[in-house]
Amino acid sequence: MEKINLLEECKDAKRIVVSGHIRPDGDCVGSCMAMYLYLKKALADAEVVICLEQPADIFACIKDFDCIDSSFRVQAPDVFLALDCEKSRLGEAETLFDNAKKRINIDHHVSNVRGCGDVNYVVPGISSTAELVYELMDKEYLDAEIAKAVYIGIIHDTGIFKYSNTSPKTLRIAAELIEYGFDFPAIIDETFYEKTYVQNQLLGRALLESIVFMHGKCIVSAINQKTLAFYNAQPKDLDGIVNQLRIIKGVECAIFMYETGSQEYKVSLRSCKYVDVSKVASYFGGGGHVRAAGCSMNGNFYDVINNISAQIARQMEEYCEQ
Amino acid sequence: MEKINLLEECKDAKRIVVSGHIRPDGDCVGSCMAMYLYLKKALADAEVVICLEQPADIFACIKDFDCIDSSFRVQAPDVFLALDCEKSRLGEAETLFDNAKKRINIDHHVSNVRGCGDVNYVVPGISSTAELVYELMDKEYLDAEIAKAVYIGIIHDTGIFKYSNTSPKTLRIAAELIEYGFDFPAIIDETFYEKTYVQNQLLGRALLESIVFMHGKCIVSAINQKTLAFYNAQPKDLDGIVNQLRIIKGVECAIFMYETGSQEYKVSLRSCKYVDVSKVASYFGGGGHVRAAGCSMNGNFYDVINNISAQIARQMEEYCEQ
Repeated sequence: MEKINLLEECKDAKRIVVSGHIRPDGDCVGSCMAMYLYLKKALADAEVVICLEQPADIFACIKDFDCIDSSFRVQAPDVFLALDCEKSRLGEAETLFDNAKKRINIDHHVSNVRGCGDVNYVVPGISSTAELVYELMDKEYLDAEIAKAVYIGIIHDTGIFKYSNTSPKTLRIAAELIEYGFDFPAIIDETFYEKTYVQNQLLGRALLESIVFMHGKCIVSAINQKTLAFYNAQPKDLDGIVNQLRIIKGVECAIFMYETGSQEYKVSLRSCKYVDVSKVASYFGGGGHVRAAGCSMNGNFYDVINNISAQIARQMEEYCEQ
Repeated sequence: MEKINLLEECKDAKRIVVSGHIRPDGDCVGSCMAMYLYLKKALADAEVVICLEQPADIFACIKDFDCIDSSFRVQAPDVFLALDCEKSRLGEAETLFDNAKKRINIDHHVSNVRGCGDVNYVVPGISSTAELVYELMDKEYLDAEIAKAVYIGIIHDTGIFKYSNTSPKTLRIAAELIEYGFDFPAIIDETFYEKTYVQNQLLGRALLESIVFMHGKCIVSAINQKTLAFYNAQPKDLDGIVNQLRIIKGVECAIFMYETGSQEYKVSLRSCKYVDVSKVASYFGGGGHVRAAGCSMNGNFYDVINNISAQIARQMEEYCEQ
């Protein structure tokens, strides 16, 4: 898809709304904030508004984080910028999208390959929407704060340059970004690695109580409602546990589940090399990607494990027969 | 320090020994293996030998890993390449260094700023020795296997592009390296993140039994000999625990200790922003860096904590008074 001329597309707009998807993740927040800071600087006469569901506090290190409008009570804009998503994931901002005079869509999701805007820049396979946003920026307006927001977007969608979507270009852009001189080690710690004491307690518990089976190729751990209540914890406090289970030597498939109600579990699945966990999850009405997927299941811990592991075993057998 | 011409320096050598420091870490192994593979290719007529203490198995993904000579029974070389260290850290290879006709030293440690060779390329502040090795390579001989070894060196000494020693140039070199097309996501998982089941059990236990004090600014955890024996674990199975304690929100100083004998502990210290843990460690006869240090201490768990925390508290008070 051909590059668009962002400033040209926005040049006559009096009101511009920048928005992204519901439950905004690091790439969404980084992309939207970078775009917001950039347009405010490059188009000084326009009113630029950023509308997003309230992001996690870890992103408060981004300049103007407190300018995010989560009320969505904004007048219809001349230009609406939908970043990192298609129209259906805009949540409350969808009405603003519908009522805008011009819609610009910038995204890297393959499901949105054609774009949902009047003007589109959708490039699947690129590390992050932040990388696309950076490409479209006139570098004369860039500064450390904008660079920081772009950097946050990139590191969150690449697992800090770890996932295979990291291209040589991604690393070269990161090089240009850190040249602006922001404190990137602190940003990585604070937005990526930092945990609360409770999160670490739950991780510790899940690790200690984990069980390996299928000759060490599978691992499972679970947290029940009583434990969550004891720590006064939320489901988001369980983020990352399944990945810590997956990285055990020899493990192909990791399962982490937490109890959401009586005989009711939310299940996260990860795999390393050959098990397609999206198939396993969709068999039970869930979904996701080949290496990361999830579903909801009923029954007690043993029911869930028995049902899931039967599906995993089927794939492992197929793989071994090949 | 001016660049050296590696191939010119080695051109008349019949026997070349490449070596690094005792207890070789990722940068040491990556640098030495990259150099070994490169010289073997570029100087086809020379005998090139790699001498190193046996590195951890995680590095077996590097080509010719099984060519590493850990017996050090090699005839005196024409050229000895000491990588990532000064002479005194060469261990059993020191004799080979002494008996070599020419010694080349490539390093990035500030303590070795002048170099210990006849020919030196020591650049403190550079991310890794691997980055220096890459700089000195004639790119016409590079291939995916050499690039992979350099990449491993860089990621291990930068915490995967996280530490402040990561420069824009480091990221640009990483971009050039991954263009050779090796499986860098797998390398990161296998050489950096992968844990054994036992390592994860010990991590879980340490997290679950951790105690916060000084209003959440300090955290401590300990593993005793009985636990190590129960899991049949080695001290190296405790790597990374202190970092997982440090990343807790609000924590400035993390202490992890394990029992090495009756009333005897090995203590690891990490800090985030202002406590100089090298001062704390050296007060008790240990040493290290400002943000990462360690020492050995006598007494029971409570003795050790009381003594250490008094030193930490002193620094915290000074900091708060500023």
